[in-house]
Formats: sequence, C-alpha cells, structure tokens
Amino acid sequence: MPVGTQATVKSVTPEELSNLGVQVVLANTYHLYLRPGHDVISKLGGLHRFMHWDGPILTDSGGYQVFSLSRLRQIADEGVTFQSHLDGSRHLLTPEKAVEIQEALGSDIMMCLDECTPYPATHDEAEKSLALSTDWARRCKESRDTDRAALFGIVQGGMFQDLRAKAVEALTDIGFDGYALGGLSVGEAKEVMWEVAGFSLPLLPEALPRYVMGVGAPEDLVELVSLGADMFDCVIPTRNARNGQLFVGNGTVNISNAKYRDDERPVEDGCPCYTCRHYSRAYLRHLFLARELLAYRLNTIHNIHYFMSLMKEMREAIRKGRFAGFRKAFFSHRTK
Amino acid sequence: MPVGTQATVKSVTPEELSNLGVQVVLANTYHLYLRPGHDVISKLGGLHRFMHWDGPILTDSGGYQVFSLSRLRQIADEGVTFQSHLDGSRHLLTPEKAVEIQEALGSDIMMCLDECTPYPATHDEAEKSLALSTDWARRCKESRDTDRAALFGIVQGGMFQDLRAKAVEALTDIGFDGYALGGLSVGEAKEVMWEVAGFSLPLLPEALPRYVMGVGAPEDLVELVSLGADMFDCVIPTRNARNGQLFVGNGTVNISNAKYRDDERPVEDGCPCYTCRHYSRAYLRHLFLARELLAYRLNTIHNIHYFMSLMKEMREAIRKGRFAGFRKAFFSHRTK
Repeated sequence: MPVGTQATVKSVTPEELSNLGVQVVLANTYHLYLRPGHDVISKLGGLHRFMHWDGPILTDSGGYQVFSLSRLRQIADEGVTFQSHLDGSRHLLTPEKAVEIQEALGSDIMMCLDECTPYPATHDEAEKSLALSTDWARRCKESRDTDRAALFGIVQGGMFQDLRAKAVEALTDIGFDGYALGGLSVGEAKEVMWEVAGFSLPLLPEALPRYVMGVGAPEDLVELVSLGADMFDCVIPTRNARNGQLFVGNGTVNISNAKYRDDERPVEDGCPCYTCRHYSRAYLRHLFLARELLAYRLNTIHNIHYFMSLMKEMREAIRKGRFAGFRKAFFSHRTK
Repeated sequence: MPVGTQATVKSVTPEELSNLGVQVVLANTYHLYLRPGHDVISKLGGLHRFMHWDGPILTDSGGYQVFSLSRLRQIADEGVTFQSHLDGSRHLLTPEKAVEIQEALGSDIMMCLDECTPYPATHDEAEKSLALSTDWARRCKESRDTDRAALFGIVQGGMFQDLRAKAVEALTDIGFDGYALGGLSVGEAKEVMWEVAGFSLPLLPEALPRYVMGVGAPEDLVELVSLGADMFDCVIPTRNARNGQLFVGNGTVNISNAKYRDDERPVEDGCPCYTCRHYSRAYLRHLFLARELLAYRLNTIHNIHYFMSLMKEMREAIRKGRFAGFRKAFFSHRTK
C-alpha cells in the first residue's frame, strides 16, 4: 500500500524536495535524450549524480513527449520516427531504444514505450493502438539489460472496459514490476476518467504498485486512491504554482487577485510550509505581479507541500482504517 | 573600516543571502513606490517584515530609476516629474517625498535624492547639476522625520576634480551619516572611474562609511577598496549569473560554452558554495541551455558567494595589514 506522488519541478533544489517529503522524481526521457543526451549523462555517472538527487528516479519512456511535442511523427510496428522540436533532427524511438536510454540514465523505475491512445477514439482505433502498445511492452521487457531497475507496464485501451481488461491480461502475462494506467486525463470528463480507473484498477495485482499517469487535481487523487491507486505524476502542483494558483484546504487561491493586495495572512493559515511561515499573500502577489523568480519558487514550495501532505494524510487514513471518513471530510471542506 | 557589498537579487531567499554572508540588501524605492506602493508596505509592517529580511536594508532615493526607466521626465528645482513605466501615471518625486517613501518602507540606510550627472557632461553642466543635487541633499536632511535610519549624501560633480571637492565640502557641511560617490560607472572608461574615485574618496571623512554606487566588477572592487571605499552595490554578480557568466579566481566562466558539455568539474575547484559542492559545469550548462529556473538560482548563489568571499578576503587582508600583497596576488591570478 505505498502511496506516492511524483512531481516534475522547476526552481527548487533536490534538498528542498526531500525536505518537502518528495519520495520519487520523474525525469523526461525525451528531453534528456535530446539535450544533453543520455550518453553525456551516462558518461558523467548517471542522472542521480548529474542532478544531485539520491532518491528514486522514475523515467517515462519518451513516447508521450514524442506524441505531444515533436514534429512529423510516423508510427510503425518497429517504433516511432520523429523530428526534434529543438533542431529538427530525425530520430527513431523503438521499445528497445526507450529501455536503453532509461538504463543509460540510471533510472530506478522505467516505463514501457506505449502509444497514448488519443481521445476520442473508436473501439476499433483503441484496439489497434492497444495491440501496438502490447507488442512494444513485450519487446521492452525482453530488451532489458539488467533487472536492477523496475520496469512498469502501461495499461491502454481507451475508455473501453473490455479493452482495458484485455490490456491488463496481456501485461500481467508478460509480467512487470508495477502497472500504470495510461491514456487518462487526455481530454475526457473527470467522471469518465474516474469510471475508467474504477473498472481498471481492481484488475491489477494488489501487491504491486498501481500508478495513474498524468493525474491530477487534489480531488482526483482522493478519488483514485479510494479506487486503489498508489502513485501519480502530474504537472498541476508545479505548473499551477508558476501560474499563481495555490492549493488550500477549501480549493485554490489565485494569488494575482486584487483582493490580496494588502492581505497579510499566509496562503493558508496554519500551513507549516516555508512559504506560509514567512510570507504574506500580499508579498506573494507582489512578487508574482513583478514576475520575480522567487515567486515561482515560493509558490512551488507551497503547492508541493500541499500535495505531499495530502498524500501523507491519505496514507495515514488508510493505515488507520478510516479512509472513508477522510474522503468525506476532504470534500466537505471544499467550497471553491 | 567596514567593507560590505549590497546585492540586488532574484531567485534566492533571505536565508540563502544570510548564509552567503550578505550583510545588507538594497531595495529600489522607485519600484516599490510604484508597485505595490510604500503605503501598502508600511501598512503591512514595513519592508523587513514584507520581504522577510531581518538585516539592514539600504534604499536608494528612486532618482536613478526615474532617470533611467520612466518617461517624460521634467526636472525642476522642486523635484522631478515623471510617468510610470508601468502604467503611464504621473508622479512628482521631490527630496522630501524620497525621504518620506524611504521612511515608510522602514529603510535602515536612506539615500538623498540627487541627479546622476550624465556622461559626458561639460564643466558647466556638471556644476549646474551639482548645485541642484546639493540643494536637494539639504532638503533631504531637513525633511527627515526621525534619525532612526542613517541618511547618506551623494557626491556628484561629473569627472571634474574641483566639482567633486566642492560637492564633498557642501555635503560634509550639511552633515550625513555616510557618503557615497554617485555618477560613476555611467559609460566612462574604467581608468577614468578609478581616477575620479581616487581623488574623491580621500576627501571623505574616514570615520564614516564611503560607498561607491553602481560598482562593480571584481577588479573594480579591489581597486576601489585600495582607494578607501567601504561599500558597493551592483547588479553584476546577479545579472551576470542570470546571463550565464560565473566569476572565478582567474576571470569568468561562460557556462553556455560548448566546451563544458561533459565537464564534470565544478565551476571552481575547491569553491565551498552550494552550487560548486553539488553540481558540475556540464549540469549547470544543461540547466542554463534548457532555461530552467534552477539555473538562474544556482548561478546566482555561486556569484554572490564569489563576491562575498572577495570582500571578506579584503577585510581580512586590511585587518592584517597586508592588503597590498592581496591586491597583487588577485591581479596575478587573473588570466582571462
């Protein structure tokens, strides 16, 4: 019953993440492959040493960014050919290459290359996409150089219950160290996402980590943990921080709002994070409007603290057998 | 014999500055007057509390930014009328207003409003400008509400020795808590700046702080300390850091340079700063090229550490009576 959250972060140091209770960081294979190059990082002793992070590192396969950032993508059984968004150079990402890059980086938790099924997709489209992802998952497993790092399979299948079940069956047959739900939070309604997670998560081996990728808002985390999810990754805590949206018990604070001009309260009363202990809403608003770099950092610290606390509270509630009460209280506090 | 440096900084916290040995921070009156407003800051308990800095704060008069940033400036004996660079609103900054704002902010070291004499200027222009600055200095002294904070006079007079002497005489007649050299580093050659400082600094009361405004590079600090300067403020450590220029014993490291691509050495071997203890040149180059916010922060930490160490070494050398040797060694190490 591990419950963790990864955060892709900017502006803060590894020590700060560690002090905030962050257990795992996620590194983007696509970005590191293009710049500075996994070969450079490997030569310099691996990603942990390069970025000065001693804790576990989860790496994605690179596939998601290939589909969302790069140009001229061509998908074939072999893999996906793409042009770098940085310099237009051509590259071929295969399942084998995705594992090779992640191993060179020194990843602790590697993800299989998959195709994130677009939304909406017909049953037929989702089924074809799933077949490709399943084949790639098998090749990822086979191409592993060592079993030092964990390798997770990713469940696709669109929003279709039968395809998600088929995906789980195929992946558990191959056998992975953990399982992720992919293809969620891609434009579908929140309720659809919860529904798909609801019928997919229970199919996964309970003894292994269940990871919902690319999710989510605080209410998503609470709902998905109640459905059995253990791990998440999402830009929401940090990206929203840099956009001035701060998470609090009853919802969010948009720090640029004029009503905070001379508000001497912290973002959240009683919050023990560094930002709330030392700075007023008025000061954070001032830094944000002045586009001071410190604004992004202080906002990021508060939001990471919020999400880490939320996950910690859920872990404790589960341990004490009172998660249902926690969940009820969580939603009753939200007013905006 | 105090020797200090102020640093206008971005991306780092007060605790980090304090840990780096920073003794004083400089706050820009012009910026804070326009946004969020000195009234707001005063209402929230003053600038120390607002920004969470317990140490001394030096405030400029606002004049320098009025002359460099604002639009439609009109100078009269009364003061300077200008339009905000943010919203075009019209404002009148008088000597009395400059002191009032600085007192409202809770400044510890206030500066008189002056006119930074443009460069080049004829003797006649510099003399007229000096007369205005002298009159404004007298009005600043007279308009002080309390003597809780120190008030410094600013020596102008262009590059002319007789005018600088005249300025010192007039200001010391009025009587201030410290004296600054203004109107330097405005486009003149380094040697001219050193020359003007060379004939101006010895005229100032030795028992009071002598502050050279807007300076400088490491070699400037060493030269000016040798001429009697005690305090400096400059954007070089922090602005150059954000532009990827890092200061080291033999000159500078431009971190974006391709030769650092897989350079696993720290910015400077043996440097005890946080950045050098944990990160390679290769990683700093990577962060900088990726425009990661952490790049600006790590670079800033190194450069502030460099400048603080330089000032500390000079204080120690002076205390031990071996400043001449220090200066010689400093210049002999510089190769680029």
